[in-house]
Amino acid sequence: MKKLKAGILGATGVVGQQFVRILSNHPYFEVTAVTGSTKSSGKTYNDASDWSFTNFLPEEVNNLIVLDTDAKALLRNDIDLVFSALPASVAYDLENQLASAGVPVFSNASAHRMKESVPILIPEINPSHLNLVSSQLYDGGFIVTNSNCSTSGLVFGLKPLMDFGIEDVVVTTYQAVSGAGRNGVGSMDILGNVIPYITNEETKIVQETKRILGKNENGKIVPASFDVNASCARVPVLNGHLESVVVQLESEFSVDQIIETYNSFRGEPQTLGLPTAPTKPIIVKQEPDRPQPTRDLSLHVGDLGMAVKIGRVRKHKNRLNFFLLVHNAIRGAAGASVLNAEFARAKGMLE
Amino acid sequence: MKKLKAGILGATGVVGQQFVRILSNHPYFEVTAVTGSTKSSGKTYNDASDWSFTNFLPEEVNNLIVLDTDAKALLRNDIDLVFSALPASVAYDLENQLASAGVPVFSNASAHRMKESVPILIPEINPSHLNLVSSQLYDGGFIVTNSNCSTSGLVFGLKPLMDFGIEDVVVTTYQAVSGAGRNGVGSMDILGNVIPYITNEETKIVQETKRILGKNENGKIVPASFDVNASCARVPVLNGHLESVVVQLESEFSVDQIIETYNSFRGEPQTLGLPTAPTKPIIVKQEPDRPQPTRDLSLHVGDLGMAVKIGRVRKHKNRLNFFLLVHNAIRGAAGASVLNAEFARAKGMLE
Amino acid sequence: MKKLKAGILGATGVVGQQFVRILSNHPYFEVTAVTGSTKSSGKTYNDASDWSFTNFLPEEVNNLIVLDTDAKALLRNDIDLVFSALPASVAYDLENQLASAGVPVFSNASAHRMKESVPILIPEINPSHLNLVSSQLYDGGFIVTNSNCSTSGLVFGLKPLMDFGIEDVVVTTYQAVSGAGRNGVGSMDILGNVIPYITNEETKIVQETKRILGKNENGKIVPASFDVNASCARVPVLNGHLESVVVQLESEFSVDQIIETYNSFRGEPQTLGLPTAPTKPIIVKQEPDRPQPTRDLSLHVGDLGMAVKIGRVRKHKNRLNFFLLVHNAIRGAAGASVLNAEFARAKGMLE
Amino acid sequence: MKKLKAGILGATGVVGQQFVRILSNHPYFEVTAVTGSTKSSGKTYNDASDWSFTNFLPEEVNNLIVLDTDAKALLRNDIDLVFSALPASVAYDLENQLASAGVPVFSNASAHRMKESVPILIPEINPSHLNLVSSQLYDGGFIVTNSNCSTSGLVFGLKPLMDFGIEDVVVTTYQAVSGAGRNGVGSMDILGNVIPYITNEETKIVQETKRILGKNENGKIVPASFDVNASCARVPVLNGHLESVVVQLESEFSVDQIIETYNSFRGEPQTLGLPTAPTKPIIVKQEPDRPQPTRDLSLHVGDLGMAVKIGRVRKHKNRLNFFLLVHNAIRGAAGASVLNAEFARAKGMLE
Repeated sequence: MKKLKAGILGATGVVGQQFVRILSNHPYFEVTAVTGSTKSSGKTYNDASDWSFTNFLPEEVNNLIVLDTDAKALLRNDIDLVFSALPASVAYDLENQLASAGVPVFSNASAHRMKESVPILIPEINPSHLNLVSSQLYDGGFIVTNSNCSTSGLVFGLKPLMDFGIEDVVVTTYQAVSGAGRNGVGSMDILGNVIPYITNEETKIVQETKRILGKNENGKIVPASFDVNASCARVPVLNGHLESVVVQLESEFSVDQIIETYNSFRGEPQTLGLPTAPTKPIIVKQEPDRPQPTRDLSLHVGDLGMAVKIGRVRKHKNRLNFFLLVHNAIRGAAGASVLNAEFARAKGMLE
Repeated sequence: MKKLKAGILGATGVVGQQFVRILSNHPYFEVTAVTGSTKSSGKTYNDASDWSFTNFLPEEVNNLIVLDTDAKALLRNDIDLVFSALPASVAYDLENQLASAGVPVFSNASAHRMKESVPILIPEINPSHLNLVSSQLYDGGFIVTNSNCSTSGLVFGLKPLMDFGIEDVVVTTYQAVSGAGRNGVGSMDILGNVIPYITNEETKIVQETKRILGKNENGKIVPASFDVNASCARVPVLNGHLESVVVQLESEFSVDQIIETYNSFRGEPQTLGLPTAPTKPIIVKQEPDRPQPTRDLSLHVGDLGMAVKIGRVRKHKNRLNFFLLVHNAIRGAAGASVLNAEFARAKGMLE
Repeated sequence: MKKLKAGILGATGVVGQQFVRILSNHPYFEVTAVTGSTKSSGKTYNDASDWSFTNFLPEEVNNLIVLDTDAKALLRNDIDLVFSALPASVAYDLENQLASAGVPVFSNASAHRMKESVPILIPEINPSHLNLVSSQLYDGGFIVTNSNCSTSGLVFGLKPLMDFGIEDVVVTTYQAVSGAGRNGVGSMDILGNVIPYITNEETKIVQETKRILGKNENGKIVPASFDVNASCARVPVLNGHLESVVVQLESEFSVDQIIETYNSFRGEPQTLGLPTAPTKPIIVKQEPDRPQPTRDLSLHVGDLGMAVKIGRVRKHKNRLNFFLLVHNAIRGAAGASVLNAEFARAKGMLE
Repeated sequence: MKKLKAGILGATGVVGQQFVRILSNHPYFEVTAVTGSTKSSGKTYNDASDWSFTNFLPEEVNNLIVLDTDAKALLRNDIDLVFSALPASVAYDLENQLASAGVPVFSNASAHRMKESVPILIPEINPSHLNLVSSQLYDGGFIVTNSNCSTSGLVFGLKPLMDFGIEDVVVTTYQAVSGAGRNGVGSMDILGNVIPYITNEETKIVQETKRILGKNENGKIVPASFDVNASCARVPVLNGHLESVVVQLESEFSVDQIIETYNSFRGEPQTLGLPTAPTKPIIVKQEPDRPQPTRDLSLHVGDLGMAVKIGRVRKHKNRLNFFLLVHNAIRGAAGASVLNAEFARAKGMLE
């Protein structure tokens, strides 16, 4: 089978480099074009991307010349789809242009997420949202987004609970600095500190969670009706967002029931055996003090970090409490986009 | 006025050293006896306590010989009261023995906190609880405790809200390593990490908060009736517990009202002008990303850290959200005990 | 006595804010003008400088309007001298323009440091270098610089050794992130890491150390003849540069002799009783594991951080080994400049 | 080929767990016995070792019952060799007892290192030292040690330089907390700090480096004659010791020559193709700011961390300067011991 040619928008940053890493030796896709800022364009990818993962790069990407982040530059190349790791401000127009030029866009940017016809897709959670794209008016192309990094963890903690009737959610986050991008958090601000604010993050969690867990009623998403209350903070951790979650459920429940529900949760990516799908989307840690960012992002050699880890599942009065850990740059960003592309391909949307 | 002679139990640890620092040049109390572990006893305090605050010590404490943490050793000295920075396991019996020997005990240990006749006193919050000690059966002495360090911050965030009718509280913490004592958290466990578990902490917060905010009905505390849901985590921060708080209120409220309520909050220690009392017990930070541990524990030269800082006050649906910061070793430990002793003296309980 | 009116160039950054802090309530100088980047200019200083020290600001600085960093803007104000916390690239021309306009400039920037007629002045070390300014060709004004932050610590470790005959110096640094300025080091680069490179730092240490310890021979500095070998690294520390120093001495020596030499070292600022001068410029720590950045930058309430701390003095074969700690933002930057201005005033160069 | 049965002494600590990890699926050795402290003995290894690498454990080790760290307990099992991750105090007697009972001991402990008949073996560096064991008086067994963790990096930086004639070495270290063991460094001591002292470390570096680079003259090691001057500090890094090295060489040299010498360096383990031997024992990083602990310990998937990374090779006057990075727990501990056992087996000393 011939691999599809993939471009990566914003390929030199934290998420861009994760795209390159995940797509290295990917069975469906090969990276044939990378774009960067004006500072990077014209250099080889190896020179432009000063980061640890460059050590893992396949030769062919190492030597790609970084293109301007610009539709024309990219369309001069023969590409079958693009992955976007762009900041929202740049993403809006460029992703529109590419979709209009017939290119399927799998975007980690927030720019188009809340548009009615754009799915925030997490194929284990809301596979039916993919067909929203049929109402997009682009000429041949389309845009599929994945969620904000914190949201991507939260919805795995919530989806399996929906049979119990979710009434109310309070989430409080401990977010890694890599979530802000390469130069997002200065060291003087975060060394030995916690910053109880992340621009727009709380709003994104509230809106995206309710949309992702909403119903697709004839091509229109009806958001979930429960309230989500979010408080976000940055902590001096490199990778991995930890979240404390408190959920009010309608039905009676026991802790064992919940753990069993999490452990047995599977979605379409698992059924389809998609390459980037984890065997189990949720892994319950039973130790008293887990999950932890430095220990649990990757649980064995070759564990990419696509599974969400949940621990400290407990019942307080009639509420469920737990902590979850999500790899913000993988399940919360690059890995999410790649899985979406794999899922779209399985659904016949990429030829 | 002659100063009262104070002994410090467990004087060489994190909290013990803060006691020494706060009591240096104190107008009411002077430190005349210090106890430590068998490793420390027999040494001068200067030699036994290897910590930064030793630099601030008055000569007389520097040269005190550390006593065994033992009632007999202490009672051989002429002391008028003791401050206890002991671990709970050791504190129970020793504090009993000292109180029975006629010594007023101001304790940061949790050992006696939940006993019916023992107040968890925070004089700005529940001054009427002090008279619980009248039902203690010690011969001349008594025990007054202060709360757990996280609780000490939370109750300042809640007390001014009680006129609005608190229905429900969810608190999530970001706690500094000093809260676990000098060797409580190993560096391999916390560097670049978050540990979502602190032994017994969540239970303490729930129980103590409801007791402190409870009513003293004829010498018996009726705990507050609202639910407190707590989730605690350790972060790589040296000093300062940050807490995210979500409160369901009965009455309508506006963010401005709440800020005004916090800003105008004062308690008896302020009225009495007690030496360790902050001018304003609560300081509202209006910047978008505060309070932060490295920036806001002490807001000016000479600020000991007794005020609780609150920020990000916001309304989401019908709930109040905010972050608060408390200096765990000062308002949450040594400073709290010293203020309690000052308050007891103002009430004529220390001659 | 009327205070001299001081302008601060680059007043909103790490060093600029330290200038404001040190000059608050200064007996000789008052801050009457502050400049900043185009992002800051036009705002009040309080709004433009988002940093902890703003809490310590005197009201009059809080409300100053930040000026453009531009000679004309500044000269419209009535100023008697300026302190410069500018980056080298901007400093060169602007400092020239101000000196030419008759303004004495006390600069922390490296731009003019290596010019023949510009002293790198540390008044305890090389007071005679001040008169280099007499050969400057500015019309009424002059430029006095202080050294690079690492150098400022090293020369205190070396100067007292010159009677023993220094033959060779090897210095290896552990430098705090604040030395790179507010946004100089990103958190993803330094959390849990060491970066063994700081642009131009090693060259500056070598050149400046030899120049500062050189002789003023009729208005020309003859650099010290010994070799200085420098290796610099950034560590995840907020403030305080630690340096390991190995010195080959000509004369025989004992460790006790060296400690005594350090302890008894005094300079002209001590004799003159200048306001910012520490009582003892060098403090020897005798504990086995000191000095340490988090513990020893300030040794008592009111210790600004102008003294250099030295520890682990030891002899290995015929070499002297020790560690030293310098507060990079105080003795290594703002405090150094202020002390230079105090010294120039004592010498009658500021009316 | 039947695998040799290996016991691990002190298997639950930082180094012990690395032994288990490296020996998992090892072609020559299988772990059949593990010992721990009294706190651990009697538990399964899985329960006793609370650490991330347990996730990588083969089932058979997970379920081993931890034995007392005691010769009798161990000798009741049928073991062909032991690896020792014991603290020096415990190691001395126990390693003697095991060697006397006929067991080959490969020890990371310092207890026996400086004995005349015990090699500190690094097979790339001093393979001829192995035959020292022929003069050991144990009955059938023997003891082979590897060096201290800092030393293990330094000798790779020095060995290839010996043809240029080493006259003098100054080394300054930035050492990770894991080098002190699981609970060796408390978080309050190291967060945001540097501690310029590590017990006995400087002495070990000086003595061991000169011994390892010494000549084996008829079964007696004549230490290298050049001086080594060492200064050691602990930094807030999890894994990886960085070292700044300054070397005075007799011969003329160019930086290119040195880089070429490092790059082409190979030893007997490479010739023999030993399983744990890295392809290239030294990897020269050419970027301006490398090597760094968080980026360069492992350079590709499957890189265990046995190669020493060297960077910033430069010439200052007539001296060579560089930084090196060594994985303290792998090349500096468990990996070193395993390579020694592989080498001993290749030399026919393990049947």
